[in-house]
Amino acid sequence: MQLNECAAYLKENDRFLLVTHKRPDGDTIGSAAALCRALRQLGKTAWLYPNPEVTDNYSGYFAPLAAPDDYLYETVVSVDVASEGLFPLGFSGNVDLAVDHHPSNSNFAQRAVVWSHKASCGELVLELIKALGVPVDKTIAELLYVAVSTDTGCFCYGNTKPETLRTAAELIELGAENAPLNKKLFRTVSKARLTLEGLIYSGLTTHRNGKISIATVTLDMMEMAGATENDCDDLASLAGKVAGSCVSATIRELEPGVCKVSVRTGLEVKASAVCERFGGGGHDMAAGFTVHMNCADTKAALLQAINEVWQ
Amino acid sequence: MQLNECAAYLKENDRFLLVTHKRPDGDTIGSAAALCRALRQLGKTAWLYPNPEVTDNYSGYFAPLAAPDDYLYETVVSVDVASEGLFPLGFSGNVDLAVDHHPSNSNFAQRAVVWSHKASCGELVLELIKALGVPVDKTIAELLYVAVSTDTGCFCYGNTKPETLRTAAELIELGAENAPLNKKLFRTVSKARLTLEGLIYSGLTTHRNGKISIATVTLDMMEMAGATENDCDDLASLAGKVAGSCVSATIRELEPGVCKVSVRTGLEVKASAVCERFGGGGHDMAAGFTVHMNCADTKAALLQAINEVWQ
Repeated sequence: MQLNECAAYLKENDRFLLVTHKRPDGDTIGSAAALCRALRQLGKTAWLYPNPEVTDNYSGYFAPLAAPDDYLYETVVSVDVASEGLFPLGFSGNVDLAVDHHPSNSNFAQRAVVWSHKASCGELVLELIKALGVPVDKTIAELLYVAVSTDTGCFCYGNTKPETLRTAAELIELGAENAPLNKKLFRTVSKARLTLEGLIYSGLTTHRNGKISIATVTLDMMEMAGATENDCDDLASLAGKVAGSCVSATIRELEPGVCKVSVRTGLEVKASAVCERFGGGGHDMAAGFTVHMNCADTKAALLQAINEVWQ
Repeated sequence: MQLNECAAYLKENDRFLLVTHKRPDGDTIGSAAALCRALRQLGKTAWLYPNPEVTDNYSGYFAPLAAPDDYLYETVVSVDVASEGLFPLGFSGNVDLAVDHHPSNSNFAQRAVVWSHKASCGELVLELIKALGVPVDKTIAELLYVAVSTDTGCFCYGNTKPETLRTAAELIELGAENAPLNKKLFRTVSKARLTLEGLIYSGLTTHRNGKISIATVTLDMMEMAGATENDCDDLASLAGKVAGSCVSATIRELEPGVCKVSVRTGLEVKASAVCERFGGGGHDMAAGFTVHMNCADTKAALLQAINEVWQ
């Protein structure tokens, strides 16, 4: 579907329910909230499906727009949702329109506008709001800045393109206050998270001359740090920060005797090949598995598997 | 001095020596190296003054352009140097031209082009190279991307403006490969640094309901982590990451019984007012001092001073 067809569809319909994805991030929340506010400016009724997994960082953007229990919707729009498996907890139903940027979008919706060349869904939603003829006010600009900046790690990840940076520039000019937003989103962590990172870094080990790095997160460490799930965003990326590391893994103790393992690799080894040995899977460069073993045994077995796959 | 006057001055002169600042960062090195290469493309002879404090991260950009011992220069250009106090180790002499973006530039040079509205010196140097009529090749684009991205913490610091993001977009289009550069500059740390951060986070304390956070870096911690000065970039910013912190301080043990303290504050307290009590000084929001005390006594005295200044 073209962008102007999508805008026409939105103008012709009403009573919107906007759906974000499971374990929602800044892109799905910022994009959906921005579109919700834009639809309201057109005189439409629009609410967000109440996603129970919204974290503290984003609840201020989400909560004011969460649909009341008795909301009777007519038109369901998913935002930044790649497949039905990523529907938020409790949601099932037909999606009338998918607005997305994932190349893997599984065509679950009646109609879709998928711009897979965009780093974030927020960039697409900005163009969609313009196509609707809604002026982008400060609130919408901030929501879209949250979307674009979080999906690119504040313009640091490999998906950041010149057009991403120009969109961010435009959003700042439209009123997004990037300095306090960046401070809040990227430069502030809870004391518990900081303590937990400290414990993880202290226990991180490297192997094969630093080419393999392994981090472990035990239940004891979580307790010592006073950490909850709110403090555990993106723990799997920490081990990969070590200079010279080609294969990194994070072992997370879920309950005594059960560990979840995330493996990240460069081009030298396939993460999925390592994880398949334990009944897991994933992508070439990011995969995972869960085993019934304690942390030490998991680490030993994992190292052996990596060494066998990567000879 | 206007930009076109500056370009004319560079065209009229030759045998350039470009000077970076003490404890050089990505902006001074990237900007000076880019200008050096652009001057050579004009047929000029140009070298960088050998700065003994260049760290491993940047030596690949710097070393190929470091002036030989017997280089006879005629024209000295400082790049991103705010005052004579920031001349690199071993340098003294007249500066013919200062190219800078610091509002505090002390007018030490014969002539200067100072664009204080720019987040980085790299943005100014890009415009200067265009004014010289030199095409910006991939090497120059990458050097300037290093300059712009490092001075803005990968577009995360409060100095990032729409024009900063647009300049970065332009540099990527001119050939700068932002993905691997960002990975190297912002997402890779040495094992020693990671271990040191772990020790610092583990020992970080908060006071007054989390409004004050204090980190300590002892010589023992440096030794345990196997850390050198290469691993100590920007340690003073770590304590300020704690959510809710208004005043953060980092105590660094320089030698047994001697501590250097960095204090960072928000709008509630003046960092300089705290540090002046110990004979130090600085700015409203970032200041420092050195005392002859051990770490524990320094921390106690510091906390008392903060509490007296911030009633």
